[in-house]
Amino acid sequence: MTFTARTPRVANARKLQRRRDRDLAGRFLAEGPQAVREALAAGVVVELFATAEAIERYADLAAHAEVTSEVSEDGLAALAETVQPQGLVAVCEQVDVPLQDALAKKPRLVAVVAEIRDPGNAGTILRTADAAGAGAVVFAGDAVDPYNGKCVRASAGSLFHVDVVRSPLDVVTPLREAGLQVLATSGYGADDLDSLADDGVLAAPTAWLFGSEAHGLPPALLDAADRQVRVPIYGGAESLNLAAAAAVCLYASARAQR
Amino acid sequence: MTFTARTPRVANARKLQRRRDRDLAGRFLAEGPQAVREALAAGVVVELFATAEAIERYADLAAHAEVTSEVSEDGLAALAETVQPQGLVAVCEQVDVPLQDALAKKPRLVAVVAEIRDPGNAGTILRTADAAGAGAVVFAGDAVDPYNGKCVRASAGSLFHVDVVRSPLDVVTPLREAGLQVLATSGYGADDLDSLADDGVLAAPTAWLFGSEAHGLPPALLDAADRQVRVPIYGGAESLNLAAAAAVCLYASARAQR
Repeated sequence: MTFTARTPRVANARKLQRRRDRDLAGRFLAEGPQAVREALAAGVVVELFATAEAIERYADLAAHAEVTSEVSEDGLAALAETVQPQGLVAVCEQVDVPLQDALAKKPRLVAVVAEIRDPGNAGTILRTADAAGAGAVVFAGDAVDPYNGKCVRASAGSLFHVDVVRSPLDVVTPLREAGLQVLATSGYGADDLDSLADDGVLAAPTAWLFGSEAHGLPPALLDAADRQVRVPIYGGAESLNLAAAAAVCLYASARAQR
Repeated sequence: MTFTARTPRVANARKLQRRRDRDLAGRFLAEGPQAVREALAAGVVVELFATAEAIERYADLAAHAEVTSEVSEDGLAALAETVQPQGLVAVCEQVDVPLQDALAKKPRLVAVVAEIRDPGNAGTILRTADAAGAGAVVFAGDAVDPYNGKCVRASAGSLFHVDVVRSPLDVVTPLREAGLQVLATSGYGADDLDSLADDGVLAAPTAWLFGSEAHGLPPALLDAADRQVRVPIYGGAESLNLAAAAAVCLYASARAQR
């Protein structure tokens, strides 16, 4: 049987587009073949909704899911937030872990997105942190929900590769106790990134704190960090955008830690 | 007198939201106080449209413009593409220069966005290139119009700081003749960025070629470049997003060229 947008299973899954319902259910939606493949590899897919065409085209994915439910085109459209989900949307168990569990693995590189509310920025930093070899990404304070659809899509699968943590804002002490130096990014930081790289500071295990593009990091986090670091500006720009600054910092650490 | 959305001057300016009309007029729109300030500093503002409130609030900007025209709220809304342009939209002369003029200044760092159609990505790379000290950014081939509103906004003023060039796709020869090594970014590049930095290669004057997130660089550009370079991936991510990869490459050059 083919489910439609009105089938209760589909209508219920659709509710996961809202944060409140995601929080209640402890589940979220991942759409498109790349995200679904990563979610299956992570073992978190509860149910895969797929059109008849997608079941044929992505037979390997459909076969891997414990439950694959065929949906009509309108059923898929109801579940998907993008125009081209390529016929696949999976209901997944949320994957975040407690901060202490992530830190117990002794990651050498951690990214903290503190009160970053833009899901595209947060998801992009998650993807970049993963690429740079980070072991954990912490969504701290009133940050965007990591399971927000746009964040999941911007993470391009990295949500399933690194330890994702949701935590209160006061993360500095536990990070430091786990042996990480805590570097806060700030356009007005006293230390510039190149000098820290020159001085060998970046070779040590490091947690990077990133604040929102509009407001930067909350003062309490800036003050609690070991250093406030600015990315040097060589030209006329006032600043870098958030995701670009995060990429430069995380890759400077990755390079120093090789 | 206060102009409204129906005043011919406003209606004509509004047409600059469309590429065809921008190309015909050789003009474009910049909105919000930051962009307007930079456009005024660059001496390219033809007419500043501002609400009564904005004229009072940004009196310094209104005084600098040769022509400041008061518009109603609906007139401003017609001109603006964002919800919060803070009362200001300027008609500006286009600022791009021929490739040969930009290269005659012997820039040591150049970014080429080749057939990148996403205006947010192109504008972000423009901003990042400026921050990294690049002298020119080349929009090559069928790239987005640099005067697209979203590109202008993503550039955060950098459109007015660096030499912006619009050029056909075959840029490699003129770049090389200007003394620049030409590095093409590719997820499958034979050289990795860290090795090039280790070997001192990045200290030389460099033009970076960036292709679209969906398709990468056109084969002709990949083949023509001096090297094909990949950003190393240390974790589980398949790749970096385009703007993040560009930030890592441009800042690796900036650091090596200090």
